[in-house]
Order: sequence, then structure tokens, then C-alpha cells
Amino acid sequence: MQHQTTFVTAAHILAIQPMSNPSTPDSVGIIAPSKVTFDDALALDCDRTLNGFELVYESYGELNAERSNAVLICHALSGDHHAAGYHDAADTKPGWWDSCIGPGKVIDTRKFFVVCPNNLGGCHGSTGPLSTDPATGQRFGPDFPIVTVSDWVRAQAALADHLQIDAWAAVIGGSLGGMNAMQWAIELPARVRHCIMVAVAPRLSTQNIAFNEVSRQANRSDPDFHEGRYFEHDLVPRRGLMLARMLGHITYLSEDSMRQKFGRELREGKLTFDFDVNFQVESYLHHQGTAFVDRFDANSYLLMTKLLDYFDPASEYGGDLVSAYKRIKARNLVISFSTDWRFNTARSREVVQAMVRAGVDVSFAEINTEFGHDSFLMPVPEYLKVFGAYMKGIST
Amino acid sequence: MQHQTTFVTAAHILAIQPMSNPSTPDSVGIIAPSKVTFDDALALDCDRTLNGFELVYESYGELNAERSNAVLICHALSGDHHAAGYHDAADTKPGWWDSCIGPGKVIDTRKFFVVCPNNLGGCHGSTGPLSTDPATGQRFGPDFPIVTVSDWVRAQAALADHLQIDAWAAVIGGSLGGMNAMQWAIELPARVRHCIMVAVAPRLSTQNIAFNEVSRQANRSDPDFHEGRYFEHDLVPRRGLMLARMLGHITYLSEDSMRQKFGRELREGKLTFDFDVNFQVESYLHHQGTAFVDRFDANSYLLMTKLLDYFDPASEYGGDLVSAYKRIKARNLVISFSTDWRFNTARSREVVQAMVRAGVDVSFAEINTEFGHDSFLMPVPEYLKVFGAYMKGIST
Repeated sequence: MQHQTTFVTAAHILAIQPMSNPSTPDSVGIIAPSKVTFDDALALDCDRTLNGFELVYESYGELNAERSNAVLICHALSGDHHAAGYHDAADTKPGWWDSCIGPGKVIDTRKFFVVCPNNLGGCHGSTGPLSTDPATGQRFGPDFPIVTVSDWVRAQAALADHLQIDAWAAVIGGSLGGMNAMQWAIELPARVRHCIMVAVAPRLSTQNIAFNEVSRQANRSDPDFHEGRYFEHDLVPRRGLMLARMLGHITYLSEDSMRQKFGRELREGKLTFDFDVNFQVESYLHHQGTAFVDRFDANSYLLMTKLLDYFDPASEYGGDLVSAYKRIKARNLVISFSTDWRFNTARSREVVQAMVRAGVDVSFAEINTEFGHDSFLMPVPEYLKVFGAYMKGIST
Repeated sequence: MQHQTTFVTAAHILAIQPMSNPSTPDSVGIIAPSKVTFDDALALDCDRTLNGFELVYESYGELNAERSNAVLICHALSGDHHAAGYHDAADTKPGWWDSCIGPGKVIDTRKFFVVCPNNLGGCHGSTGPLSTDPATGQRFGPDFPIVTVSDWVRAQAALADHLQIDAWAAVIGGSLGGMNAMQWAIELPARVRHCIMVAVAPRLSTQNIAFNEVSRQANRSDPDFHEGRYFEHDLVPRRGLMLARMLGHITYLSEDSMRQKFGRELREGKLTFDFDVNFQVESYLHHQGTAFVDRFDANSYLLMTKLLDYFDPASEYGGDLVSAYKRIKARNLVISFSTDWRFNTARSREVVQAMVRAGVDVSFAEINTEFGHDSFLMPVPEYLKVFGAYMKGIST
């Protein structure tokens, strides 16, 4: 039984990469997001149309004269455009992939021009449920269309056009972001030279869908949800969103890392025979759930889980993943983590094997790590080594 | 991808044991529960006292003249005293362990006198949150004490005394019921000749506790919960209890069995781009959740999950499981299932290895099955064979 009380990652991991700050040489520093407005209508997979849309994005590094060093970063379910750096000098928390993006880091901003947009349907500045529907003058809320990963690719392609980037040196993502990268390589093969997919699956498993549905049900059954019109009542479905996030975190961590972090350690040192928090792990989940409520919109959350459920690139090709992958021109890297039980290594092997059968160039590494699905966000040395070596080999 | 629409277990399993009915020779037939009132005070681990209590139980078979053929069945989290047979001729659903209990079955009622009580804190007739507190004349509700597995053993021992059963030929249970059996063997070693633990763990893992806390939070954050006094408002926290049960079912099934049962099959045959049920697995979870609300009490559910979290027989022995097991006089059988990820085989091996080190007689089998944790309720041929052979070897 372990007796650690901190929620941080293992000390040896932190030791190899101390937290940067805006002025450390390996940080992209203080970053201001940009916003682009697209006036053209965007036809969506659900047969509805967005009459124009906005994408907020951040970029790090400089686009070279040949416009050949651009890299697209795709965020995961609860991510956003703030992938690296800080928003101001007082900011204590860097972007979500700061461990991988910066001068001299795996995605080296001295070499690459790195672009990370917030996706359609998100809640951090791009067009989504929080935006105003120009047709009604009202907030979209629950009426925002259920977008797909293909819709994301189309919107991101519009951003590439805007930035005059014909082809990405690499499209990169972890988890849902990796699926987004995969869809790019299939749908717009001429525009992706390298595709890097970390902790992915070719589609969700039945169990993945089941967990998503419990999360959705938690939100939708919260009386404050009001069929998604909570904002009209000046309410937020806090309980549902908190439950969804607590559940999510169980699937992001490995059983081992939970045990090592929290064991069966008691908050008060003894059983209290009441329904308050007894075990440290309960306290951790409450903390994660509460923090999430303040930074995420419930309608966006529902959209993201549905988009995950719907992701299935093989479905357009008679259920045959190999046929889908035959379209790919990119060179590919797939990375999985030994303790990831959300999208385990067997799921990555499905991707790799189908790519091999499709005659597509693919490299694969399974990284031994204790951190479960969340490993993709962490500076695990072996992971950074494999990922970094691949990135070094990309010509610009 | 599978395309089955039924929620039943695999056909080959059902084929080997067609559903009995009250008049088939291998059924215990129509059964009426009994109730015993215990007037003596029961001191609980939480330092509170129950001033008397009632236990409802069922029994099958006949107690022999030597009173040496009695078997105690311990139910799991959502189980009750109705382990076998039917309550009336029109009853279409037998007791929860009818696959194992009956004339000629694994727990052969021609040989054994089988006793199954509903446990303290339950909601099917024994003293629990639905009962009236004699001290106040009001329903216990959320004020019912948090009982422990040890408290259950004490109450069950009072039932054994009442039935004049000095020692059980066997104490048997699956999941939480197996933990209950384990606690009997440790605490009252002279009264247990054989202890059979199916799909158990020596205590919950951090992940197990985390799932339990999400379930509790779902109930406690339901506005209809009213701090457990929902009955005073003529309400039931339906949403919370449904969510808890949906989540529970994900952990009871294996990822494989979910995939084989439901795959990614769509309810309407196509994506509907809305938040209604799209995939069959969502429909299954809704069904399970809704059905549970009608047969279980939320305060009882909270108690049961807390009791599971608290279960840790080693804790009384300085955290040393071997020391705890050194008290055991019974012969033991431990059975695990290859696809059980709630209490996986490694957890059972912890039990077995500690028993071996304690010098206790223990047999162990891991059964290859696709059904996950729920396997303990199912007529899996290899399981019935191992379990049945052991039961045949018990002298009465």
C-alpha cells in the first residue's frame, strides 16, 4: 500500500523536466491566440450547414519561406487551442502539451511552425454551442449541430488555406486528436506529409461508448441541464459535468497509477463511517470534477463524446479499414502506452496492421509507462525519445 | 463487428442449461421467505448499536439430523435472500443463483440445507434504511449506521444460532458475497468447514473505490436525494440510482462480452445526429438502469458501496493478510474468471498466495470465460464443473 498524498506525477518524471515558465529558454513564452472568420458556408456530415464560422488558434515558431514547416496539432476531448506557453507573465500553468512543444522540445518550434486550433463545437472561442447562431441571433446551445471528425478536418483545411499552407509537414494528435490526425491523412492525403497518432483507436469500443453514454446521461439528467438551455435559466449543470469528469478521470489513469498515487490512503487517517470523503482518491476525483465545471461547457462536452462515438473512418469504406487507409499518402507514426486501458495497445495494433496491409508507411512504438491514457500528455522519457527522433527526421 | 440484438447470454450457454420453472425437477420450486427477529442488541464496528434487528432469509433442502449439512449463501452488492426458486407459479424469473442451487445442481439441495439471508442494511426485508428505528419511530433512512462485512458476519452468526447450526458445511459467495464468506472463515473459524469465494479480492483497489465514489456522488448529487430523506418528500433519486447502475454494469461485463453482445450496432440502423440512443449498448444500459430503480433503495446502495470500500480483513492485522488468514480453519476454494476486470485473477491470486503462506488449505481455479465479473452468476460449464466437484467432496 502506498502512502503518497500529492496528486503530482511521479518524482522521477518531474525531475527530468522541471516545469518551465514564460522566460525559460525551452518555453514558447507568452502567447496570444488569433481568430479567423470564415464567411463561406460549411456543409456538415449531419446534412446541416454552418453559415460561416470562426476558429481561434495559437501558433508557435515561424512559417518558413517555402511554407513547408507547418505542423497541425489536434486537441483531445477536453483540450483547446492553448497547447504551449503562457497567456501572461503571471500564468502558472502552461498549455496542455507544453511538455512536447517549444524550442528544443520534441515538436521543436525552432524548426516547425506549430498551429493549434480550438475545434468546431468547442467552448474556448471557436464556433460552438456558446456562439450566437446568426440565423436566430440567439446562442446555439443544444441546437448546435453534431459535428464529426470529418467536419473538423474540413474546418481545419479552411484554416490551412487561410494560412496558405498547402501541406502540413505533420498532423499530430493524442487520443481524439490522434483520430483527427488519422482522418486528415485519409481525407486530404495530398496535404499531410506525416501523420502522428498517439494513444488512438480506429474507432471506439462498445465499452468506450458505454462510458460516454453514462457521462452524457449524467449531464442530461441533471435538472439544471434544461434540455441544454441551462444558460437561459442562468444555470450550469454542475453535478452532471462533475460526474462526467470524475468518471473520465478513472479511464484516463491506469489502475496501477491510481494505486501508486492514492492506494487506500484515508483522508482523515481513519474510517469515519459517513458518506463524506474517506479515501484520498475520492478527494482527487472531486477536485478534478469541480475544476472542470469552471472551464468547460456541458453542450460542448456532449458534442465531443458523440463525435467520438461516431468516429469510424472504415464506415465510409464498407467497414474495411484497409480500404480507408489505402488513400493515405503520409508516412505515419503510431505510439501506444502499455497501461492505457481506454485505447489499449491492441487498438493501436489494429491501426498499424491495417496500414501495413494497405501498403502505407507506418512506424509503431509501445511505450512502457505507468500513467495510462494520460501518458500522451506526460514527459515520459522513452516516449519523448521515440517521438522526438521521428520529428527530427521530418524534412521541412 | 457483431450484429446481435438480444441482451441474453450466448446461446451455447443457455443451451446447456435451459431455464427451469417451478415444476422442473432441478428447481427448488416455489419458496416463501422466512423472517427472524433478534431482540438482543448488536454492537457494530462503527461504535453504534442496533437495538435488535430482523433478518429475512430463504432456505432450500432439509437440515439433517446431525445439523451438519447447512450451507450459507452470501449475496453480492445488489443481491438479496431470493437465491433460488420462484415466489409463485406465475413467477418467470428465478432467484439470482438458480443456476447453481437446486436438486442435482452444483449446490445440491438433496444433500445440503441451503440458507440465504438478506443482509443488514439491505432493502428486501432485513433491517436496513427502509426499516423503522425503534428509538424514534421514524424510518432509519440515511441515519442507518454504516455496517461492515464483520457486522454482517455477526448478524449471520445470530441466524446460525437461531437455526441451531454450530458450523456451516460451507459458506459460499461471489463478489462481495465471497468477501463475506472470507470474513466468516477469519472471524469464526470454528464455524466454517469450507469457504468458497468466487470472483473476489482481498480488498478493493483504488480504481474500485473510485468507481464506487462516482456511483455515490451520482445519488447524493441528485436533487431528489434530499440528503437521503427522499421518502419524506415522496421522491426517489431515480437519476442517480440509474446512473450508478449503468456504470456498475460496465464494470460487471467484460469489454469482450460487450463487444460480442452489442458491437457498434445502431438502434435505428444509422447515425441520427442527436442525443437520443444511437447505439444498442446505450439502450441496454438504460434498460438496466431503469429496472434497478424499481427494485433498490438508494440509501441501501450507498451503504453497500461503502461497506465494500471498507472491507479489508488485513487491516485488523497490521495490514498483513497472511496474519489474518492464519486464523482460518476452513478448507477453501477460490475461483476467478479470465475476463473479470472488476476483481481480476491477480486479485484472487493475492488471496490464494496469502492463504498458502498462512498454511491454509486452498484450491484455486481460473475459469476461461467471456462474461467478465458477471460470470459468477452464469452457468459456465467449466465453472460449474470445478465448483460442483468441490461441493461433491464436502462431507455432511
